[in-house]
Amino acid sequence: MGALKKISKWWYLLVAVLIIGIFSVPAITQQRSQSLLAVMKERGLTEKDILAAAKTYTPTGKYDPYIAISSGGQSGQLIVYGVPSMRILKVIGVFTPEPWQGYGFDKESQEILDGGKVLGRDIKWGDTHHPHFSETNGDYDGEYIFVNDKAHARVAVIDLSDFSTKQIVKNPIMKSDHGGAFPTPNTEYVIQATQYAAPLDNKYYPITQYKEKYRGALTYWKFDRKKGKIDEKKSFSIELPPYMQDLTDAGKGISDGWSFTNSFNAEMYTGGIEVGNAPNEAGMSSGDTDYLHVVNWKKLEELVSKGQYKVINGHRVVTIDTAVKNSALFLIPEPKSPHGVDISPDGKYIIVCGKLDTHASVFDFEKIKALIDKKDFAGKDPFGIPILDIKKALHGQLQLGLGPLHTQFDAQDGIVYTSIYVDSAVVKWDYKKLKVLDKIQAHYQIGHLVAPHGDTVKPHGKYVIALNKMAVDRFNPIGPLHPQNHQLLDITGDKMELLYDLPIPIGEPHNVSIIDAKLLKPIIRYKLGTDYRTHEKSPHATLPGKEKIVRKPGVVEVFGTVIRSHINPERLEVKKGDKVIIHLTNLERAQDETHGFGVYGYNAHMSLEPGKMSTVEFIADKEGVFPYYCTEFCSALHLEMMGYLLVKP
Amino acid sequence: MGALKKISKWWYLLVAVLIIGIFSVPAITQQRSQSLLAVMKERGLTEKDILAAAKTYTPTGKYDPYIAISSGGQSGQLIVYGVPSMRILKVIGVFTPEPWQGYGFDKESQEILDGGKVLGRDIKWGDTHHPHFSETNGDYDGEYIFVNDKAHARVAVIDLSDFSTKQIVKNPIMKSDHGGAFPTPNTEYVIQATQYAAPLDNKYYPITQYKEKYRGALTYWKFDRKKGKIDEKKSFSIELPPYMQDLTDAGKGISDGWSFTNSFNAEMYTGGIEVGNAPNEAGMSSGDTDYLHVVNWKKLEELVSKGQYKVINGHRVVTIDTAVKNSALFLIPEPKSPHGVDISPDGKYIIVCGKLDTHASVFDFEKIKALIDKKDFAGKDPFGIPILDIKKALHGQLQLGLGPLHTQFDAQDGIVYTSIYVDSAVVKWDYKKLKVLDKIQAHYQIGHLVAPHGDTVKPHGKYVIALNKMAVDRFNPIGPLHPQNHQLLDITGDKMELLYDLPIPIGEPHNVSIIDAKLLKPIIRYKLGTDYRTHEKSPHATLPGKEKIVRKPGVVEVFGTVIRSHINPERLEVKKGDKVIIHLTNLERAQDETHGFGVYGYNAHMSLEPGKMSTVEFIADKEGVFPYYCTEFCSALHLEMMGYLLVKP
Repeated sequence: MGALKKISKWWYLLVAVLIIGIFSVPAITQQRSQSLLAVMKERGLTEKDILAAAKTYTPTGKYDPYIAISSGGQSGQLIVYGVPSMRILKVIGVFTPEPWQGYGFDKESQEILDGGKVLGRDIKWGDTHHPHFSETNGDYDGEYIFVNDKAHARVAVIDLSDFSTKQIVKNPIMKSDHGGAFPTPNTEYVIQATQYAAPLDNKYYPITQYKEKYRGALTYWKFDRKKGKIDEKKSFSIELPPYMQDLTDAGKGISDGWSFTNSFNAEMYTGGIEVGNAPNEAGMSSGDTDYLHVVNWKKLEELVSKGQYKVINGHRVVTIDTAVKNSALFLIPEPKSPHGVDISPDGKYIIVCGKLDTHASVFDFEKIKALIDKKDFAGKDPFGIPILDIKKALHGQLQLGLGPLHTQFDAQDGIVYTSIYVDSAVVKWDYKKLKVLDKIQAHYQIGHLVAPHGDTVKPHGKYVIALNKMAVDRFNPIGPLHPQNHQLLDITGDKMELLYDLPIPIGEPHNVSIIDAKLLKPIIRYKLGTDYRTHEKSPHATLPGKEKIVRKPGVVEVFGTVIRSHINPERLEVKKGDKVIIHLTNLERAQDETHGFGVYGYNAHMSLEPGKMSTVEFIADKEGVFPYYCTEFCSALHLEMMGYLLVKP
Repeated sequence: MGALKKISKWWYLLVAVLIIGIFSVPAITQQRSQSLLAVMKERGLTEKDILAAAKTYTPTGKYDPYIAISSGGQSGQLIVYGVPSMRILKVIGVFTPEPWQGYGFDKESQEILDGGKVLGRDIKWGDTHHPHFSETNGDYDGEYIFVNDKAHARVAVIDLSDFSTKQIVKNPIMKSDHGGAFPTPNTEYVIQATQYAAPLDNKYYPITQYKEKYRGALTYWKFDRKKGKIDEKKSFSIELPPYMQDLTDAGKGISDGWSFTNSFNAEMYTGGIEVGNAPNEAGMSSGDTDYLHVVNWKKLEELVSKGQYKVINGHRVVTIDTAVKNSALFLIPEPKSPHGVDISPDGKYIIVCGKLDTHASVFDFEKIKALIDKKDFAGKDPFGIPILDIKKALHGQLQLGLGPLHTQFDAQDGIVYTSIYVDSAVVKWDYKKLKVLDKIQAHYQIGHLVAPHGDTVKPHGKYVIALNKMAVDRFNPIGPLHPQNHQLLDITGDKMELLYDLPIPIGEPHNVSIIDAKLLKPIIRYKLGTDYRTHEKSPHATLPGKEKIVRKPGVVEVFGTVIRSHINPERLEVKKGDKVIIHLTNLERAQDETHGFGVYGYNAHMSLEPGKMSTVEFIADKEGVFPYYCTEFCSALHLEMMGYLLVKP
């Protein structure tokens, strides 16, 4: 009965009026109005719930104005969902093979995954963290999204014309990166920051040589927009002290050409709980401040072009010394232990939050720039890097709550939203006037938060999503491993309002970016015979009537087609030991008329969207009869869409 | 403006009344009532939409009354979602490795995946089709769910105490199964049916020997409920003609002890479009009827216990001859090409739909049984199997539409819902009175459909979900590969009403089962030190303070722990070439306090829910410094929860 009390007497009045009108209003409307109250009673919904439902419910065929792309954490994938309907549209295979998409099971995608090998080894998972859209003039352009793999210091490029992964690059000098992948305002570069310091080469050095041999770095991956790929040869890095660098944001507007990176182990503590040392969590938090790294990347670009770099593992690295000598690297103390670093739309303010501090620190880039220009330094760190005076660099600080982390910008000037981890809350505040405006609970332990275009030069406002690390009791229990909870907040009023709890069913969905759906222009189908990873016409594209099986000694190559409801060929006889190469072109032009192709026992699977050409390749090393078939329910006679691979002894 | 017209004038009146009352009602309520209409206008919502929203919207912390578990098609996984909120709660790793869950990346799960090897090879994907809950007395008991892999003829057992996969078995004689996994009414057996006929041994036979050497089969996997596992040694099969068997349903009530399987290639056509033959879709559909296979599995059990079987690939198979001789196998013609076979709650009626027929055929088990008892046969098939007269076995037929497929039962006696693929519709009809009651469009190309407990002895009614194979234009475009569309229908009224479109973001979510959430009793945490795949205390469980590193020649074994916010040990030095075994116990007792563990470059990852013990194992074959860290955002000092694996040359 508790829930019923929440339906105020005025709603009863409202319904009473309807019931009075019952004999005069059209039957369907009477019924529906009565029904609404009945449903509210039955389901224990309040008026507020109905409003929230109305703000999120999206009827069949209606589209969401915003698309969110979330990292999938240790699933290694990305997760696409609509806002405000909060419906998940696609899990995109990125670092982990995903057979539905053929990802890692067809030849084209295997080549992409090969780009992510670590020390020559295939790596079958990743830990995606920060997905960020490509930008033009500091705003999202809807063409690409980048995401990093914290576990293996890799970056992936996902093409938004078909929402599929086009490239993976392995950082040649890093062994970990939490801070990635952050585009500069025109996507000149995608920035990646080392997290766990390690030798930049791949050699062993004992932990006792941490200060001498372990290093952090920032890598500026050059993005070639025309090719839609990172150009590894044109990319470079800057060497950094082993301070455990963390999140990074590229400057914009007046700070364009700079990047800002925080860190959390200025102590250079190396742990050792197993031998009686204090654990890392204590040793790395013993000081009062860490360092905000302020880097002039346009200067680095210039230094690299002049050959002022060292080559490590085939990669160009500007050393600390060179960077310092050329005024490209500075440090500013920041309260412990910083997590978020977020630049205002105009590029003037840099908001940093320290998890162990209750304040947000708002730095002023103009003040920073003036200090640098005047060479007004408070000292140097052990690596000779100039340190700026925190007080001189600050616009101000504001107490927000316990464990402030990340900040997103509203469309209204000066208004921001900051996640507060320990308090489990979102705080709305004014970073210019340094004033708290509102606070709302998050359920529970919010990490990042995100607003549409909330880190660009033109934030859209409207919504904030709280990315909560724990759901605890929010959803039906499904065992010890819980989904995480992305909570949609309405930020259009003075007070934030909770609209919707979205469980994320896979991974630790670490961070999200939200784009105006109008900026996305995905294709509906591929041009006939397209290699879906290069987006070019495949030399193996096959037209109807041109199907053939080409036999060479030890190799059987199929140029086949699929169309409702058959695979051509339906029989493929080979000899044991033959290399079998199967190219299939989907001849369909109808939207959503996807076929699949799976073979028994050979780890071969492809997804063939309309027009796509894809290839599987394997050695027929076992004798026998191996059915193959279309794995998408494509037509009434879909089950009949099959054939046999016959492997003769 | 079109949408606005849908908001009837009576709703305006209703709001007008509220506005009149604006000066007397509590402010919040006024505001909300006004807001509702404003939101409806802004978002183009109709009254019907608001009702649908109210029937599905689930506020923070409220639970769903039903839990749906969907297959994930070629993703190889299962997908868990709540009904009616239609929020996806978990993607469960089943046939495909899934790193978030550690599935395929820790040692315990690797052993489970090993059970699914095909001809000795690790298979990294599956094509999950029909998830079915374990049953007690013909109703779901909430303990387990089973699902088959069509691509490799495998069956998985998923434990619903922690929603994780406990076992995979590979069918020793099948190379394909669409029809699985179907429990008998007390889960004595889980039934699996071959789809694409192939030699039961693993040898090569040319396709020209199709009739002689290729066979179908039904496997009855014995389920040991106490162990929560299939007992492969106590399982058996029946050999069948190469008719491409399809879906199966176990009899219940008066038909308990029997099972019913349809098929779609009575022609025994073998295709060959590549050599100028008609494609399979034509050749396999040239006849008028296929066969419903009627099997007395209790009789088979008896025959097996008496040793009346052949051993093929180490597995017990009752031959067609033995089955026929002992009255355990019969055929009934059924209109082309049957897909669904669904037994009524009382076990008396068997509803079969043929995709190329517009009718549903309702067979009467009592008539079938009488014909069998009287040996009243219409003839024999080429394998000597008695064929019953379709007319004598039918209760009746009813025209439903183009391409009827599957049927689910309502709580109301006689009422069923059937999916109509070509028409893209759900038909509500009375299978006793043979009368169509209602029809609603589905968007688009509905395959299966599902109702809560809709295939049990006690269907719940309330909802039907249409599992639509194509979404086409229903959701924001995200490229050529679309999600599928699970549409929730309200079936409580005379007319079905569409409530919600749920995009499924992964795989071809082929079929779903829906259980009353009250029947699920998942655990919140593991007992300290539990091996999560056996659910028993692990010998490697480690208590706090008892952490140790055990070194033997060539092997370094870690007995470690994780707790907020450190991993013990934080440093692990080994020699290149050492086998490294890391056992970690999560010491947390708080709900949802999961830690993860990932190591750079070694494909090692585990998910450590509270209490869980898990293990990763690898050869440290590369020299260098390899960071490891907690991969779940577990606490404010989560980033500091890390350590180093140091591999000395």
